[in-house]
Amino acid sequence: MIQTPYLLFLGDAPDPLAAKVAQGIRDWRPENCVGQFRMEGCKADLGLPDMTLAEGIAAGAKTLVIGVANRGGKIGQTWKKVLVAALEEGLDLASGLHNLLRDEPDLAAVAQATGRALHDVRVPEVEYPIANGVKRRGKRVLAVGTDCSVGKMYTTLALDAAMRERGMKSTFRATGQTGILITGDGIPLDAVVADFMAGAVEWLTPDNDPDHWDVIEGQGSLHHVSFSGVSLALIHGGQPDALILCHEPTRAHMRGLPDYTLPTLEQVRDMALPLAQVANPACRVVGVSINTQHMGATEAARCCAEIEDRMGLPTVDPFRHGAGRLAEALAAL
Amino acid sequence: MIQTPYLLFLGDAPDPLAAKVAQGIRDWRPENCVGQFRMEGCKADLGLPDMTLAEGIAAGAKTLVIGVANRGGKIGQTWKKVLVAALEEGLDLASGLHNLLRDEPDLAAVAQATGRALHDVRVPEVEYPIANGVKRRGKRVLAVGTDCSVGKMYTTLALDAAMRERGMKSTFRATGQTGILITGDGIPLDAVVADFMAGAVEWLTPDNDPDHWDVIEGQGSLHHVSFSGVSLALIHGGQPDALILCHEPTRAHMRGLPDYTLPTLEQVRDMALPLAQVANPACRVVGVSINTQHMGATEAARCCAEIEDRMGLPTVDPFRHGAGRLAEALAAL
Repeated sequence: MIQTPYLLFLGDAPDPLAAKVAQGIRDWRPENCVGQFRMEGCKADLGLPDMTLAEGIAAGAKTLVIGVANRGGKIGQTWKKVLVAALEEGLDLASGLHNLLRDEPDLAAVAQATGRALHDVRVPEVEYPIANGVKRRGKRVLAVGTDCSVGKMYTTLALDAAMRERGMKSTFRATGQTGILITGDGIPLDAVVADFMAGAVEWLTPDNDPDHWDVIEGQGSLHHVSFSGVSLALIHGGQPDALILCHEPTRAHMRGLPDYTLPTLEQVRDMALPLAQVANPACRVVGVSINTQHMGATEAARCCAEIEDRMGLPTVDPFRHGAGRLAEALAAL
Repeated sequence: MIQTPYLLFLGDAPDPLAAKVAQGIRDWRPENCVGQFRMEGCKADLGLPDMTLAEGIAAGAKTLVIGVANRGGKIGQTWKKVLVAALEEGLDLASGLHNLLRDEPDLAAVAQATGRALHDVRVPEVEYPIANGVKRRGKRVLAVGTDCSVGKMYTTLALDAAMRERGMKSTFRATGQTGILITGDGIPLDAVVADFMAGAVEWLTPDNDPDHWDVIEGQGSLHHVSFSGVSLALIHGGQPDALILCHEPTRAHMRGLPDYTLPTLEQVRDMALPLAQVANPACRVVGVSINTQHMGATEAARCCAEIEDRMGLPTVDPFRHGAGRLAEALAAL
């Protein structure tokens, strides 16, 4: 578990998109952010107070989170100077970068000498059990997608926020690197060893109050041949009571697979639901989340209405319309 | 890849069942076995010539394979003496034990000093790619089961043998520890990191002659909530042209999951086939393999006939009836 609050490191981000992890933390857990640390030439700005390391620490920061993608897969010397100083001044470091903090000899040495933690959220830090399939108390909802990167994380974060706004007991459960950095906790499911995937999801969503909802971030897609096994482990380990179908209607083919067309929402429903009912016979599909970022407002509204009509399920773009109707569908379950 | 032929180490096996890995190698790859090495008190006998290490080496052995389960998860001192001597005399070691050869300091040191290899087949030795889903040449058949341990490995080994008997081009593709030790090659799929599971299966079953069949050992079950993700990675990474359904009719519940009943063969067919057709629209279910080990001959024959009638598919117990009819079903495809 990563200590909060955070000082967000934006480095020398060449554009706002490069800092999208930091932006996600800022959007979804503003209470965890004391400020931003920017280097010369940084083109991203989260609208948070700019702080030095000392100012961040004075404001209560416990961890410097690398919220920016690095170029070329190396942690450059300009960053290193800041990261080493952060450890020396008493901050932990957290990163979702491909190249690990712990593999940098200087960072590893300074962390050890200062007793600070290096959190590489791509690497599982727990020995997960093998799933036992035992029915757990509490309720769970999982996002399943027609494809990778259609908005499952955004949907579940928005749903969690909408549920808590309504006074429902809800916890967002991160299953990927960005989600873990946003909330400080979760499982990097795509990095877990095959035999323990479903067990990791069980571990992430344990027994809880009967009226508590775990809102589980989905990964991949049952129809994405590269990652479908991860998606199925979420369905079986999560034993969800409810599924939300996620879709991006303008995509021409499955992400990274030019020869594969996207399944229809009906196909995803008809594949995911019987699989989910193996672990939880009461599971239902309760709503649809459409990512309309490539559409105008009118087209987006028409698209959601058409799908709502076709599927007979509340259909929203949580970014445009909020996730309130999905939260209500869960409350009504 | 493990160097063949093997000298099979049976240790002090307390009964024949403890040496079932060695028995599997003896049954399916007799040409790879020069002899057996037994210690005092060994209660297993494969009917192979008993040999000392020196005799095994003189007969051409390249690797001493630990074909016996150890008690209590430790590699005891009585075994150690033999294993160290084997390395010193020029044999590699191969093992599917939970506790790894490489984690034994004495074995690791002697292997390094002598330049011999320690093969722990539970540990992936390749950096597998992420699956790309590109259609490959050649044909593939995969065993899918109603449960774990219903006979998928036996079925595919028997099918491979029956196909080669008929002059078909066929390669058994091992996806578990025992299969890897039997053939000297394969992937320990349950130990592969989630993101690379399907890619490992693609790597295992590459482009081949149009009339060549990869006969892929199945793992787990789509209906087994602990391991279903592994099963789906096989279906999508293997992009099979044909599926064989495997079942053990007397089992009371899913292995290790007392609250879960087994699916019917129809349910497995209806779940596995549409998933397989995502990667290979031409995929068909071509036969059923029934493990009748807990039935008498009459009951077994009646059971297979009843299922054949019900499913409209050739149905055999490969152990009792051979896998010839399954091979013919593939040849007719």
